[in-house]
Amino acid sequence: MLPREIIARKRDGEEVPAAELRAFVTGVTDGSIPDYQAAAMLMAIVFRGMTPAELAAWTDAMLHSGDVIDLSMIHAPKIDKHSTGGVGDKISLPLAPAVAACGVAVPMVSGRGLGHTGGTLDKLESIPGFSVNLSEAQFRKQVDELGCCLIGQTERIAPADRKLYALRDVTATVESIPLIASSIMSKKLAEGIDGLVLDCKVGSGAFMKTLGDARNLARTIVGIGRSAGKRTVALLTRMDEPIGIAVGNANEVHESIDVLRGGGPADTRALTVALGAEMLVLAGAVRDSGEGAVRIARSLDDGTALERFRRIVAAQGGDPRVCDTPEKVLARAPETLEVRAARTGVITAVDAEAVGNAVVVLGGGRRKKEDAVDPGVGVSVLARLGQHVDAGQPIALLHHRGGELAQAAAGLVAGAYRIDEAAPPRQPEPLVHEVVA
Amino acid sequence: MLPREIIARKRDGEEVPAAELRAFVTGVTDGSIPDYQAAAMLMAIVFRGMTPAELAAWTDAMLHSGDVIDLSMIHAPKIDKHSTGGVGDKISLPLAPAVAACGVAVPMVSGRGLGHTGGTLDKLESIPGFSVNLSEAQFRKQVDELGCCLIGQTERIAPADRKLYALRDVTATVESIPLIASSIMSKKLAEGIDGLVLDCKVGSGAFMKTLGDARNLARTIVGIGRSAGKRTVALLTRMDEPIGIAVGNANEVHESIDVLRGGGPADTRALTVALGAEMLVLAGAVRDSGEGAVRIARSLDDGTALERFRRIVAAQGGDPRVCDTPEKVLARAPETLEVRAARTGVITAVDAEAVGNAVVVLGGGRRKKEDAVDPGVGVSVLARLGQHVDAGQPIALLHHRGGELAQAAAGLVAGAYRIDEAAPPRQPEPLVHEVVA
Repeated sequence: MLPREIIARKRDGEEVPAAELRAFVTGVTDGSIPDYQAAAMLMAIVFRGMTPAELAAWTDAMLHSGDVIDLSMIHAPKIDKHSTGGVGDKISLPLAPAVAACGVAVPMVSGRGLGHTGGTLDKLESIPGFSVNLSEAQFRKQVDELGCCLIGQTERIAPADRKLYALRDVTATVESIPLIASSIMSKKLAEGIDGLVLDCKVGSGAFMKTLGDARNLARTIVGIGRSAGKRTVALLTRMDEPIGIAVGNANEVHESIDVLRGGGPADTRALTVALGAEMLVLAGAVRDSGEGAVRIARSLDDGTALERFRRIVAAQGGDPRVCDTPEKVLARAPETLEVRAARTGVITAVDAEAVGNAVVVLGGGRRKKEDAVDPGVGVSVLARLGQHVDAGQPIALLHHRGGELAQAAAGLVAGAYRIDEAAPPRQPEPLVHEVVA
Repeated sequence: MLPREIIARKRDGEEVPAAELRAFVTGVTDGSIPDYQAAAMLMAIVFRGMTPAELAAWTDAMLHSGDVIDLSMIHAPKIDKHSTGGVGDKISLPLAPAVAACGVAVPMVSGRGLGHTGGTLDKLESIPGFSVNLSEAQFRKQVDELGCCLIGQTERIAPADRKLYALRDVTATVESIPLIASSIMSKKLAEGIDGLVLDCKVGSGAFMKTLGDARNLARTIVGIGRSAGKRTVALLTRMDEPIGIAVGNANEVHESIDVLRGGGPADTRALTVALGAEMLVLAGAVRDSGEGAVRIARSLDDGTALERFRRIVAAQGGDPRVCDTPEKVLARAPETLEVRAARTGVITAVDAEAVGNAVVVLGGGRRKKEDAVDPGVGVSVLARLGQHVDAGQPIALLHHRGGELAQAAAGLVAGAYRIDEAAPPRQPEPLVHEVVA
């Protein structure tokens, strides 16, 4: 069947047979199907969606477009976490060593920041010397020895996804739940995992702005995971303000170490515990998420998680003193600028995306893939949703390198806060909206 | 606005402003917008359609992507006809000289055959020496002197359409009424016409299989014509069997000359008269289509249309003796093969597309744009819809060059006829279903 005929089937809402979807993905990967046919197919998928059977075949073809890491020689259960991306989302950093400290292997392949969301790789690289570019053999060895390795996607993992993602970015076909879900899962399933916990963000700083959309994405991803024979669960968690205090690369590493030391902001710790508990459940290491939460919290409090992180950092070439004196090891922009509350009242909304964009303006994120990232700049969020603030009270602190960019970023952050003079202070909503299993 | 953002607007069902559509078409034409973005846009248009305002801007941008022929120095009203394509549709050949003989200029830019439908250019080129490749100056001069010139689309007319059409062909985005309508109209409006009669075919041999689709296309084209300030009318005519007797290039020229001599099959003549009458009405040359029909019929019967055709053929380098002894001048394949009725009964359906495909199999049409066309092969259709036939009675005659192709074509033609033993003979439906003005 010609590519044009496969596109026509999708366009007309027919279920495309698995073999044809595989042939299409293979053709896109090897270049025998040109970009313009791929683009037309992607737009048809935006409109028509994909059935579970189509999605399973499409994802599987993407997954097998490149290397699939074989971790079968590692006997520990291998569980990863993926976040759909948020502002101040540094959870992978305390989470991966904490779960590893509980005896579950975490083979974690992460991404870089783009737009308003940061990326785990950029955060890790703000630790001097830390390398995220390891060979597959090194990755396997470290997962075996330390229960955890934190690397970037290699050229050889899911090349079909890399090609399709670049095309989606320029053809207005990013916003499609089956395409988002297959992109995520093709990479995660290539890691050789037994199970996956998805942290699906909802709210002003997330790609999914509504609970309905997030639930839809979560169910789609859980469906793909199940089709592939992997234990998969999704948590819908709130992203209606940045997570914790720190936004920006080195800034977030610092906060992660606070959590690994048993401290840190309550929400950063709580999210680490909640996600870690689900990972332990999927691994069969605990009876339920309650027991899992206790185990993760204990690893944070007794120093075993921090100790595991120290060994990971050292193994990957980073300076392990970051665990003891992060303020000395991590870069920090020399200047600070306070953003103050414009009026007295209660914070009723935070545009987390605007805070993320402020970090991009400061140089701490990327507008384009090729942009360099400044590890030392960032925002410390000093006021939280539902909190009462007085006019003139600092609500955020910018770490910057001077100049007009700081003013522009301050304007973005100031504009991100809605302060209502009449509203009563209130507790924020629960961190985890619901679990999709 | 970035191309991606324009695509996103169309994807989301917003009305895209005219300036953005113009920029998009311009970018596609000059190559600054890559094919994959064009393909995504085309697929979004397939799903979302276009508003009349969008369609007017899109078509106008395509029209102005190349040269617009200036015929303003010709004082006669300039009216063209376009057919959406059928099997045995040779109407342009008798029509253009007949209308010109009635004092209305016909600047006709035609296309080549592709798939089951033939093309006027291929038919004209079966007249030895006839050239369809004239310069714009030659075209203008001949329209002025003879009231008619029959040429092919030059590279400089609507290059945006050529690019988009090639892309639509391979991205399953051909079947879209706004894209079909804008493609047709961008070329026709570039001819410098004052008005256009559209012959919109409906039925088994047409692109539009249902009256609803055909009406939709006709209304869309009439709307574009009106937006561009051109008098436009559409006739929905039946294509539930081939037009007339002759299918195939030289074969159809022969039948056209029969019509120009006042003879020919009743339906070929009737369609020539009906379309010509509307062209005379649009030109303001007659009061109504009744008077127009009388004028066209007279030009066929009194030899003035044939005389005009003879002068056009001679002016374009063709052998004018084709008008007197077509059987000596035109190519004809040496072999014939009769296709006979399989049973006694009434012909209740004809798959005109299959008859068109039989001509392609014989070598008289194109599967791909690059294919050469054999002028001498074809099919003569001997039995019509609603007619009683006896088992073994010849229903079609193939003109072929021997071999297996003839057998394959005969199979296609035989399979195209449904003969019902119980049905009573009946008159076919009227040639013109309705007029869209």
